[in-house]
Amino acid sequence: MTSILDPKTIGRPARPRRHVRTLTGYMPETDATGKEKWPRGDEKVWKAGMRSLDKDVESITKSFVNHVQTSLARQAHNLDDLGAYQAAALSVRDNLLVNWNKTQLQYMRKSPKRAYYLSLEFLMGRTLDNALLNLGLKDEYKDGVRLLGFNIEDILEQERDAALGNGGLGRLAACYLDSSASQELPLWGYGLRYKYGIFKQLISPEGNQLEAPDPWLEHQNPWELPRLDVAYEVRFYGRAERLGDGSGRALWTGGQEVLAIAYDVMIPGYNTATTNNLRLWESKPKRGFDLNSFNAGNYEGALSRFVVLFADFFAYRTFGKELRLKQQYFWTAASLSDILRRFKNLNKPMSEFPEFVAIQLNDTHPTLAIPELMRILIDEEDLHWDAAWKIVTNTFFYTNHTVLPEALEKWSVPLVEHVLPRHMQIIYDIVGPIYFCTLIILHLTCQLDRTCFSSKASVSFIYARLCALTMIKTVAVEKKFPGDRERLARMSLIEEGQPKQVRMAHLACVGSRKVNGVAELHSDLVRTTILKDFVEFEGISKFGNVTNGITPRRWLDQCNPELSALITKALKLEKSVWLKDLTKLEGLLPFAENKAFRKEWAGIKQRNKERLAHYIETTLGLTINTKALFDVQIKRLHEYKRQTLNILGVIHRYLTLKNMTPAQRKKVNNRVVFFAGKAAPGYYIAKLTIRLIVNVARTINADPDTRDYLTLYFLPDYSVSLAEVLIPASDISQHISTAGTEASGTSNMKFCLNGGLLLGTVDGANIEIAEEVGESNVFFFGHLTPAVEDLRYQHLYHHIPIEKKCPALAHVLNQVSLGLFGDNEVYEPLLNTIRQGDYYLLSDDFDSYIAALAMVDEAYSDTEEWIKKSIRTTAKMGKFSSDRAINEYAESYWNIEATPITPHS
Amino acid sequence: MTSILDPKTIGRPARPRRHVRTLTGYMPETDATGKEKWPRGDEKVWKAGMRSLDKDVESITKSFVNHVQTSLARQAHNLDDLGAYQAAALSVRDNLLVNWNKTQLQYMRKSPKRAYYLSLEFLMGRTLDNALLNLGLKDEYKDGVRLLGFNIEDILEQERDAALGNGGLGRLAACYLDSSASQELPLWGYGLRYKYGIFKQLISPEGNQLEAPDPWLEHQNPWELPRLDVAYEVRFYGRAERLGDGSGRALWTGGQEVLAIAYDVMIPGYNTATTNNLRLWESKPKRGFDLNSFNAGNYEGALSRFVVLFADFFAYRTFGKELRLKQQYFWTAASLSDILRRFKNLNKPMSEFPEFVAIQLNDTHPTLAIPELMRILIDEEDLHWDAAWKIVTNTFFYTNHTVLPEALEKWSVPLVEHVLPRHMQIIYDIVGPIYFCTLIILHLTCQLDRTCFSSKASVSFIYARLCALTMIKTVAVEKKFPGDRERLARMSLIEEGQPKQVRMAHLACVGSRKVNGVAELHSDLVRTTILKDFVEFEGISKFGNVTNGITPRRWLDQCNPELSALITKALKLEKSVWLKDLTKLEGLLPFAENKAFRKEWAGIKQRNKERLAHYIETTLGLTINTKALFDVQIKRLHEYKRQTLNILGVIHRYLTLKNMTPAQRKKVNNRVVFFAGKAAPGYYIAKLTIRLIVNVARTINADPDTRDYLTLYFLPDYSVSLAEVLIPASDISQHISTAGTEASGTSNMKFCLNGGLLLGTVDGANIEIAEEVGESNVFFFGHLTPAVEDLRYQHLYHHIPIEKKCPALAHVLNQVSLGLFGDNEVYEPLLNTIRQGDYYLLSDDFDSYIAALAMVDEAYSDTEEWIKKSIRTTAKMGKFSSDRAINEYAESYWNIEATPITPHS
Ligand SMILES: Cc1ncc(COP(=O)(O)O)c(C=O)c1O
Ligand SMILES: Cc1ncc(COP(=O)(O)O)c(C=O)c1O
Repeated sequence: MTSILDPKTIGRPARPRRHVRTLTGYMPETDATGKEKWPRGDEKVWKAGMRSLDKDVESITKSFVNHVQTSLARQAHNLDDLGAYQAAALSVRDNLLVNWNKTQLQYMRKSPKRAYYLSLEFLMGRTLDNALLNLGLKDEYKDGVRLLGFNIEDILEQERDAALGNGGLGRLAACYLDSSASQELPLWGYGLRYKYGIFKQLISPEGNQLEAPDPWLEHQNPWELPRLDVAYEVRFYGRAERLGDGSGRALWTGGQEVLAIAYDVMIPGYNTATTNNLRLWESKPKRGFDLNSFNAGNYEGALSRFVVLFADFFAYRTFGKELRLKQQYFWTAASLSDILRRFKNLNKPMSEFPEFVAIQLNDTHPTLAIPELMRILIDEEDLHWDAAWKIVTNTFFYTNHTVLPEALEKWSVPLVEHVLPRHMQIIYDIVGPIYFCTLIILHLTCQLDRTCFSSKASVSFIYARLCALTMIKTVAVEKKFPGDRERLARMSLIEEGQPKQVRMAHLACVGSRKVNGVAELHSDLVRTTILKDFVEFEGISKFGNVTNGITPRRWLDQCNPELSALITKALKLEKSVWLKDLTKLEGLLPFAENKAFRKEWAGIKQRNKERLAHYIETTLGLTINTKALFDVQIKRLHEYKRQTLNILGVIHRYLTLKNMTPAQRKKVNNRVVFFAGKAAPGYYIAKLTIRLIVNVARTINADPDTRDYLTLYFLPDYSVSLAEVLIPASDISQHISTAGTEASGTSNMKFCLNGGLLLGTVDGANIEIAEEVGESNVFFFGHLTPAVEDLRYQHLYHHIPIEKKCPALAHVLNQVSLGLFGDNEVYEPLLNTIRQGDYYLLSDDFDSYIAALAMVDEAYSDTEEWIKKSIRTTAKMGKFSSDRAINEYAESYWNIEATPITPHS
Repeated sequence: MTSILDPKTIGRPARPRRHVRTLTGYMPETDATGKEKWPRGDEKVWKAGMRSLDKDVESITKSFVNHVQTSLARQAHNLDDLGAYQAAALSVRDNLLVNWNKTQLQYMRKSPKRAYYLSLEFLMGRTLDNALLNLGLKDEYKDGVRLLGFNIEDILEQERDAALGNGGLGRLAACYLDSSASQELPLWGYGLRYKYGIFKQLISPEGNQLEAPDPWLEHQNPWELPRLDVAYEVRFYGRAERLGDGSGRALWTGGQEVLAIAYDVMIPGYNTATTNNLRLWESKPKRGFDLNSFNAGNYEGALSRFVVLFADFFAYRTFGKELRLKQQYFWTAASLSDILRRFKNLNKPMSEFPEFVAIQLNDTHPTLAIPELMRILIDEEDLHWDAAWKIVTNTFFYTNHTVLPEALEKWSVPLVEHVLPRHMQIIYDIVGPIYFCTLIILHLTCQLDRTCFSSKASVSFIYARLCALTMIKTVAVEKKFPGDRERLARMSLIEEGQPKQVRMAHLACVGSRKVNGVAELHSDLVRTTILKDFVEFEGISKFGNVTNGITPRRWLDQCNPELSALITKALKLEKSVWLKDLTKLEGLLPFAENKAFRKEWAGIKQRNKERLAHYIETTLGLTINTKALFDVQIKRLHEYKRQTLNILGVIHRYLTLKNMTPAQRKKVNNRVVFFAGKAAPGYYIAKLTIRLIVNVARTINADPDTRDYLTLYFLPDYSVSLAEVLIPASDISQHISTAGTEASGTSNMKFCLNGGLLLGTVDGANIEIAEEVGESNVFFFGHLTPAVEDLRYQHLYHHIPIEKKCPALAHVLNQVSLGLFGDNEVYEPLLNTIRQGDYYLLSDDFDSYIAALAMVDEAYSDTEEWIKKSIRTTAKMGKFSSDRAINEYAESYWNIEATPITPHS
């Protein structure tokens, strides 16, 4: 007989004596006394080879040169700045890995409860500078590369942003990772390894946004570590058959299987050896499944058709909703498999899972983790439904990031049924009782929609559960709120309609132990609007708030080193002390009254403006007037964020200036307005706003009457790195969302931390910033949240023409319509959103916005007072450190504790 | 004004102060006295950081542990064999790179003439073991990993073959690279970085070959070094417009552009610091070209649609001929750009190109390099046609690998015109004169086919050339061979037909300085058949022979370490001496008469058989009888290689055994027959042969009457690594191609070098092996080449039924037809190739084949004499070292010289 191979081994080299302990998350074995045995080989030889951190310039240059020679195969005479960046990055990576190994071993040894942060976005920005800061090696590297003929600033500039996300939500995730490591908390992030970051934004000559791909991995990424051994299978499609034994278990078979492969990104803590992990999943086709029809073309096709491609959500224009659903499931399923494997190594009963694992759902994107964990516990671990549900609802925590109805995730039931048939069953099993009760209550006995309950087994299982559990809980709804049928429909996880839809926020809410919003106002809105019924039913204590935070390492020390040095000098504290306890900044308050200090403070702001001007000059070739007030609005382009209000305000200022005599103009504050931000590629109105900004800039920057007093720039391709140059240079920044629409905002905190004043609406975290720094130090305007609903009602049913309601705004709109900035007609759809409907209340807020701008002008002319405001603002920003935020999560939500690296490890 | 970005910078980080000397191939600058200046930074600091080779166990373990800790982020307790392989490979790679840097710098400093080996295939096999051998660090690594708790054998087994090719041609390229470095010759290889190696072969339960993809890069490849900065643009399609100024120049624009990115593979020489380079090209889409219509889906689609995917030529079933043409051009164009850049750094006039560059075309696959170099010289370097043609024809060398008509490459003219319009023009410009002369001679004045000459300019340019150059040369054809019209048609580069086709072998021949075949017989056939007319016209001296060779490092020392040690002991020479001068093996001859030596020799063969048996046992679970003669045929499945003859011989032996009494059988030599080899996925008859072998094996291995005397195995997934285990274990190997069909063969050399005897036809290198070792030591059979044509004629026009011509064979065929091995009917198409037509002459050679097998049996029963034959065979294999072959190329073809690394470098 000849040999027949097992198809499972296809494409893999034969591995006869495979050693199994290959994954991360293993510990050395112990002997009978509990002492760890040296695992393999001669301990002395191993230890002699082990490296520790490079701390001095000599070992740094040595490691650098070694990487030039070997990893890059270059020599001194053919190394450019990019090569030097790569060598420096590789040598820093070695150091990070030394600490990474120590940290993970420590977590294994101590087995503390761990938290996992599931986020579809991580907007990490650049890593090298931050890693040097956190390792405390900035000066040593600076000296080292200088000795080798390079300039550290030029080297840092070579790095490409890791931009795996769209905006605030992703950057928040990045700040939380930094804080978790800095606070020595056992936390890992889980995300996707997108092949392309968010699109690169270009501006066409007409002012249109163009989108180019961002193949960020193309020059290789020194900050990730492939873990090709850490691989899990993930299934899609196929059939789910209930076993019909009343257990609720089912068999899910067939369909398509893909592999999830782990890539680890090291997250160093500031001034600690703790180095946490961000694990990103990449997809790979599972080989060997369809050998008989193997065909090269299909194989490659399948490779590229699936999965983890674009960080940019709007790529789904092209790839469709189904791919997005698959991505979400792929990522949550792989992460859960990994978390479960790690838990199982502890040899604890499954019921103790929530004692060792807390999983944070960053928005509803990972909500499928809830039915997925149910599936694993019931179908694979053989748990009873109620036991499983208890575990699930003690494991997950859900952070809501928006109350805007159009932004709440919903998935069509037929689509979920197609892609994840078993999960749809489970969702129905969660829904079932409530749904049944609704039916019972409505006296519609059992006219069940066949599409909902796929089989008799399903129906009878739900009946059984209904009797057991629901009578206690859901019928309790009926008891608590007798006859409140509408409420029951509102609370359902399934929204009626064509097609029916799964409400992910509801699923996340019922499946989690706690729910929170991201700023006080927003958490209130969560409790009083979208989840109101659940609050009343489950009790207020499930619904909390954790106001967002930002890491002061990147957003002060790294992006504004001069200011950081001045603060250190003033506070007479080690930098490492106040950077980890940001409330210490309060110590700056008395210095507001110190003239010399104010001078230093203002000098730094001036130099940051010049740094920004230099950056713009070298990259875009534009010359900026640094003797003006710098007024900045940088964030995603969105109607609710009201960049339109800002640009219309700029036009208003321009028209006003044009109407002045030269002598009058001379008295006006000089102002440079900066915009930056990307619009979703399919968001027509937002893209039109960019075009308007670009063309207004073209006109007014060229107008000799006004250009000395007012200029305007749209900086293309907003990114974390651009934010790091812009934020320290700003005098005032604008956060002017319609009240009640911005959940928190985090860039507002960044500006204020860097001594920029805030011009904003009474919304999101603006409110808490004002509470901290005092209302006299911020510029507030506009209607308040409670008024919004009524105003919108008025717009619809008691429409007042804009000419009457707000003549100033009407004039501005007319000038645009008349073609003052060229392009006539083009902007009409944008202008009409204001003239008709005006959902975001520009016509209601415009006058008070102009008044607020005038107040800014007035305040700015009193230079000394302005600097005082600036100092006071920075001084009171302690609350907004992400260290504070992550500790709140750790204590009040996840129940995890700091786990410092002991000398032993 | 706002900022408008240059679309060229899309997706790239801003690099304001980019240093340009980033590519390979730069030298340090020199000062006025010609002394090299230290290029950058503090020379002392650089030098202190520089590493040299790890030579002792301590630095090896240190480097190993360091890579475990950092590159792999693992620790002693979670490192498996695969991880240990990776760590060992990375540390060896560091050493290779130290030498690589030195070698390349030396080449730059000395600027010797260089040779470039363009091959579409490089069948490298595994690297680690070979690198250790060549670096002389085998023992040190063995000790080092043992100290760390690992076994070097297990580690080596983890490596996956690099199988970027189909068979002999690709493995030859790999051997030549090894020899070039070992002989310190300045040679680089150029190939493609296929994403998938040749398919992995599996055998289905019915005995069919199944093909699975080989994603060999999936676990990362430590042996390559990405050179992301070395990138060239390559164009396809578009329009080519002649300038019409009589210069012959043209403008090629539009179409599709892609980028070629370099990956370097280090090629260490044996016992020398010289480390040559194999540069493999990967394709990448060129970004930014179609921004307005940028669309995520198309972008990824374009990425995967193009190019360098499968090493397996037969993937073109799926992707089509056009892709294959694109691959060939992509690879030659990128390689030429790279070669030209390097030449230009020398600051020599273009006319001296052939003094510094020799380019070897490994078969016709890279023939497009000829029109491509013409295009560059004429269109870009502004050279006159004749000057360009002179450069071209002094630069290229062409090795022919086959005279089988069906294997000669031809490209349809319309396809070439579509994909490479400019190259088609140039090919016509090369053809033109000959073609015109043909027409003139045939008195068909100017009835030109419009599709050939795309424009008037083209026609008039060719007329001009005709007057200038051709009158001297092509009209000379007419002078030399007056009236020989057929000859002119035969010699044309364009074959008439529907469609017309470009004959690549003719193009390669006219565009090259020299042409060679790969064994004496084959080179004779090249001169007397396919290129006969060119020989008569251009003179015999252009047409040479270089008999192939194999590297004795891999194919003796590495795969048969015991035999190598015995040889070293016997020869009383350092191993490094005879391994580099293989003719020294002759010193073994006297030992054939030494009984003790024979015993040692035979003992080694026995242990190699047991090693093979052990390998088969552990990987396939089959038990092999090691007390039998091992009879091996391993190579691609092809009708001309006649695996069918072998399997029919096995059946014949089986039937004979079945007819014997048990007592008679006891007297028969025991025999184990091994087959291995892949069939092209679309090659029906070859795949049927595999199925027959598998099912014959199934039957006879289960037959209690015979299984003690004859067993048969088809080992799946033939590869370099499998060859390394099989070859040293063979007593006899079969190389039984129809005479005149196998150009050389190289596995025949490998078997003989390892003391296996040869059973073969009088074909290819078999002949030269017999010349060396003496006819008494080989088993020859079958008709000779001159008889073949006549026999085929007889088959067609004087057919004799097989029952009459060769009753023994007829009986065998009938038994198969009757279903002795199951599957009746299935094999008919295969059997009919013999019954009808019998193009490969099985019916003519069968009887003498059976007789030869009997002679083998007879010889084998005289054990001592057999061992003598074995020793004598090895002793006389010196000629077949690839060192000898590469030196022939270097001296008689490329005119390059050894360039040893001087201590200075
Ligand atoms: C690149 C990027 N995008 C988005 C944000 C969030 O901005 P905002 O809070 O203004 O929405 C930030 C925060 O600084 C950022 O750096
Ligand atoms: C994997 C592989 N394929 C093909 C060949 C060439 O074999 P042959 O010369 O028998 O065609 C060799 C040579 O040993 C080889 O190792």
